[in-house]
Amino acid sequence: MGGNERQIPDLDKVIHERARLRILVFLASSAESETGFTDLKSGLGMTAGNLSAQLSTLEEAGYIALRKTFIGKKPFTGVSLTLSGDKALEQYLDEMESMLAAARGRR
Amino acid sequence: MGGNERQIPDLDKVIHERARLRILVFLASSAESETGFTDLKSGLGMTAGNLSAQLSTLEEAGYIALRKTFIGKKPFTGVSLTLSGDKALEQYLDEMESMLAAARGRR
Repeated sequence: MGGNERQIPDLDKVIHERARLRILVFLASSAESETGFTDLKSGLGMTAGNLSAQLSTLEEAGYIALRKTFIGKKPFTGVSLTLSGDKALEQYLDEMESMLAAARGRR
Repeated sequence: MGGNERQIPDLDKVIHERARLRILVFLASSAESETGFTDLKSGLGMTAGNLSAQLSTLEEAGYIALRKTFIGKKPFTGVSLTLSGDKALEQYLDEMESMLAAARGRR
């Protein structure tokens, strides 16, 4: 039997990377449309450096938007999923679900 | 709101890597307990070099077993999921399902 009967999807590389996937899922599962950098950092247990680097990659891909402002005198960075990020995540989730179904089909 | 209310799982690094995940899902979704190297290669559209490297990593983790033999005069490499690989994949799938549910909870 060849592999053509069961398509194993390619998966979006930008989204699939573990830290970035965790960031996107965190944003997508948030009740608010915008999440503060600090909440994201503590919620995911990531270092500020790593989180910043991953957010840059996601921003370059157009999947998230960063908004820098001040709350009182404190700088605040708000992170939100863009429409394009939401769609890309949705497609990734569909592909992942079909993989789960494939992997579990036999069980 | 902090992140404690929604746990974003860590995900097994050995399994989560795209190529390795595709290999494991291919093996897990196969009707046979053993898949030939060549079938795996063509089914996943991977190069022999990349597939070999990823299989070595999975073998070192104890997630797959490789069996080298001959069919007639042709060398044959059979790849199968081990019990430990099956369990690790199962746990990964559980974690991924909970992430999917989290990401889609809001939708």
